[in-house]
Amino acid sequence: TTYQLLEEHTNMTLIAKIINISLIMLIITNVIATIFESESSYHQQYLVEFTVFELISLTIFCIEYGLRVWCCVEAKKYQNLSPSKARIKYIRSGVALIDLITILPFILALFFNIDLRSLRLIRVLRLLKLTHYFKGFNIFISVIAKELKSITAAMLVMVFIITIAASLMHIIEGRVQPETFGSILKSLWWSVVTMTTVGYGDVVPVTPIGKLIATIIMLIGVGLVALPAGMLAARFGEELRERKEDLDSKIKQALADGY
Amino acid sequence: TTYQLLEEHTNMTLIAKIINISLIMLIITNVIATIFESESSYHQQYLVEFTVFELISLTIFCIEYGLRVWCCVEAKKYQNLSPSKARIKYIRSGVALIDLITILPFILALFFNIDLRSLRLIRVLRLLKLTHYFKGFNIFISVIAKELKSITAAMLVMVFIITIAASLMHIIEGRVQPETFGSILKSLWWSVVTMTTVGYGDVVPVTPIGKLIATIIMLIGVGLVALPAGMLAARFGEELRERKEDLDSKIKQALADGY
Amino acid sequence: TTYQLLEEHTNMTLIAKIINISLIMLIITNVIATIFESESSYHQQYLVEFTVFELISLTIFCIEYGLRVWCCVEAKKYQNLSPSKARIKYIRSGVALIDLITILPFILALFFNIDLRSLRLIRVLRLLKLTHYFKGFNIFISVIAKELKSITAAMLVMVFIITIAASLMHIIEGRVQPETFGSILKSLWWSVVTMTTVGYGDVVPVTPIGKLIATIIMLIGVGLVALPAGMLAARFGEELRERKEDLDSKIKQALADGY
Amino acid sequence: TTYQLLEEHTNMTLIAKIINISLIMLIITNVIATIFESESSYHQQYLVEFTVFELISLTIFCIEYGLRVWCCVEAKKYQNLSPSKARIKYIRSGVALIDLITILPFILALFFNIDLRSLRLIRVLRLLKLTHYFKGFNIFISVIAKELKSITAAMLVMVFIITIAASLMHIIEGRVQPETFGSILKSLWWSVVTMTTVGYGDVVPVTPIGKLIATIIMLIGVGLVALPAGMLAARFGEELRERKEDLDSKIKQALADGY
Repeated sequence: TTYQLLEEHTNMTLIAKIINISLIMLIITNVIATIFESESSYHQQYLVEFTVFELISLTIFCIEYGLRVWCCVEAKKYQNLSPSKARIKYIRSGVALIDLITILPFILALFFNIDLRSLRLIRVLRLLKLTHYFKGFNIFISVIAKELKSITAAMLVMVFIITIAASLMHIIEGRVQPETFGSILKSLWWSVVTMTTVGYGDVVPVTPIGKLIATIIMLIGVGLVALPAGMLAARFGEELRERKEDLDSKIKQALADGY
Repeated sequence: TTYQLLEEHTNMTLIAKIINISLIMLIITNVIATIFESESSYHQQYLVEFTVFELISLTIFCIEYGLRVWCCVEAKKYQNLSPSKARIKYIRSGVALIDLITILPFILALFFNIDLRSLRLIRVLRLLKLTHYFKGFNIFISVIAKELKSITAAMLVMVFIITIAASLMHIIEGRVQPETFGSILKSLWWSVVTMTTVGYGDVVPVTPIGKLIATIIMLIGVGLVALPAGMLAARFGEELRERKEDLDSKIKQALADGY
Repeated sequence: TTYQLLEEHTNMTLIAKIINISLIMLIITNVIATIFESESSYHQQYLVEFTVFELISLTIFCIEYGLRVWCCVEAKKYQNLSPSKARIKYIRSGVALIDLITILPFILALFFNIDLRSLRLIRVLRLLKLTHYFKGFNIFISVIAKELKSITAAMLVMVFIITIAASLMHIIEGRVQPETFGSILKSLWWSVVTMTTVGYGDVVPVTPIGKLIATIIMLIGVGLVALPAGMLAARFGEELRERKEDLDSKIKQALADGY
Repeated sequence: TTYQLLEEHTNMTLIAKIINISLIMLIITNVIATIFESESSYHQQYLVEFTVFELISLTIFCIEYGLRVWCCVEAKKYQNLSPSKARIKYIRSGVALIDLITILPFILALFFNIDLRSLRLIRVLRLLKLTHYFKGFNIFISVIAKELKSITAAMLVMVFIITIAASLMHIIEGRVQPETFGSILKSLWWSVVTMTTVGYGDVVPVTPIGKLIATIIMLIGVGLVALPAGMLAARFGEELRERKEDLDSKIKQALADGY
């Protein structure tokens, strides 16, 4: 059945495998095409090819979406619902909404005039359709969601340190470099670029006292700003250890079957 | 009672929730206003609005402070003390001091002439008033305080490596780039910027031998300087795991009730 | 026997130790020579020396390869196979293939005209020959291979965030800086340089709104992009703890005997 | 006794505390003085002050060294040795060697002509004298020494990735930017600066293919190069947990008594 071909990722038949791998390839090709199409030289040269490819993929994604909605009634979790209720519930689920968001604007764009740049952004979001096939992805997102609270706490600390650092540097360097440290708002750019250790070098303290304060800010701040990432990584390690058997089998399955 | 409206964060009534959320919004708006006000173009254009907003918030924060001091006698931990002793003890506590520090300079500024820039810095510190509402914050700070010793050890190592790196590069690059490596003091800026991996690029070794030594310094130093952050992150993961039930319930409460 | 001299790393005789250490020194000298030879000033000045050294090392590596293939039949794991089958199996093994790859192109280069630059790259790969002697290396690679799945998941998230960031910045900064943000393809360079916190500073957002979005992207993205490394480090810690006795003894042996 | 004043860090008398804190202050002041003295403007202005201070501290450090050697016979670990043997053993120990190294060159400098720059470097090394007082420092170093093997393995991987990255970029960018990618040797600077995520921006790939390869190198390499630091941090967390009681009490003691 269609359901087995599209949604079942265990004990897939050869045809199901081919369909799934083709869809994955289509998603990836789509995103790569979007990236290259945004380059105006390629855009003009291969205008027809890009348009045809987009129309074909859009058609396939529409059919895919329709079939998924159609056959979702066969899913185990919707067994106790009437077909129409099951479909409404499926349409409201995360994966189905992603599918809809990544096709709807393009159907609308056939009738209305929509800004090309924002359309491109939505096409890039098609990458999220991969969550259908790569179950590891889902687990990843759910873990982040679960740790959102402690991450939020760490991020608040981060925002606080960045704001204080920006205020301090504004007071010290503001008179010498009014262009870049002339207000706390302007200093924030230096503060974020420095605290995340990106350090472009477009804004740099120049006064001795500015360099001294920046040194202290860096030594203390850089570590604290790296905390959320470190905490997330540590929690992931733990989460992975706990879920090991569960996760391993799921990823193995997801990799072997769909990806 | 006033105490229940302001300080109790469990089983809040609707009015208590509205008051708390309003105060949180006021704090955040205040800091954002300070950031924008420091931008001179906004400052001049919306001078009246900024002044009125500051006066209103200052009044509210003063009333809030007064009420908190007034009703602190109802707090469980001050039950055994006489009202006046309880109030003195409360005024000396961390959260109350933060409240006082963020309003006192502005009351003084009405009578005396205080530098606008330092006032701005103090207004940004109002962010710390959020510790009233967001209990996760408190726990965060207490954990860092607890691990201060091992962090201090790691920071000493960090300072040592940075100083040695600066001395080495001063010896090697000092003659070629006297402006930036002319003394150990000057080399310290390069050393800190490099070791924290910020790497602005405003100071860079240019001689082959300088690059070679810088390479070795980077490969060894970068890892060691990242240690405090890594240790802190690892310890946090552990701390969180230990406190899990305790912390989760507290944050849940803090988030659900106050934030 | 030859086998004992080359392949056995426990209870080595003095001669075996000398041979192994000489081979390790030869590999390291070879790679250092390649690095210096690529510098055209050294290349021209010491042309004869470099050529003679390369010919001598090539000869030694060829003899080494021949001897290893010859005496592999004495290895425990090939005991049940006939000599010819054992040798074919050995030639197909990872370490033997590395040995072959790092000598074959140079033998071919004696007869055919091969681009010097790609030959240099292959000579650098001779570093991989160290896996013969340094068993810790092997374990390292096998651990990464084992965790490849969760790393892949984290890397997919990384690629997704980088692509979204590039698309966003292309929309915002594209019109102001067409040279560097003119297409998603061009923006990707900024995105990767920023998210990995390398931050060269050759491409930087200049519009206020571009800086604002870049700030948000950095604060969220930098942590998520650092996840794979953090996860890998956490897993390594765990892996090392589990294997401790096993690994320690192996490394100790490898270090004491061969390296 | 002298031994109790200098070496015993438990149950110190008030005089012992004053002596130890004075010595710690002297060491720190010494290093700060060295840093400022290297700045030629300060050097010339306060020449007499710097010289007098250096002579006084040198005298104190010499007396300190003499007294430590003299009274080391009272140490528990040397109880079974004859006084002369105990003193020879003490002179050969790590802390005593550091003490000697940081005073000997200055005594020699009184008679011979020694380069001022290298003397400065040795004076900065006086920071290491703090190991007398801050026991946490010792533990820190011993942990790194203990994990040196797995760190070496990770560092070998790091060196390998950096070399391969440099070779690849030399092949791709070498013709376009001969100044900075003209040889593998030159490319190594870019490679190290990039892989450690310092990213000065003084050397940047400019060709599209160069940027593509650099992108791939960054995404893979940055994580692997951060491994040693991550592993060390993870191992530290573990080590600290294991030693908790032991370490805590030692640091507490060291902090309370000496530092």
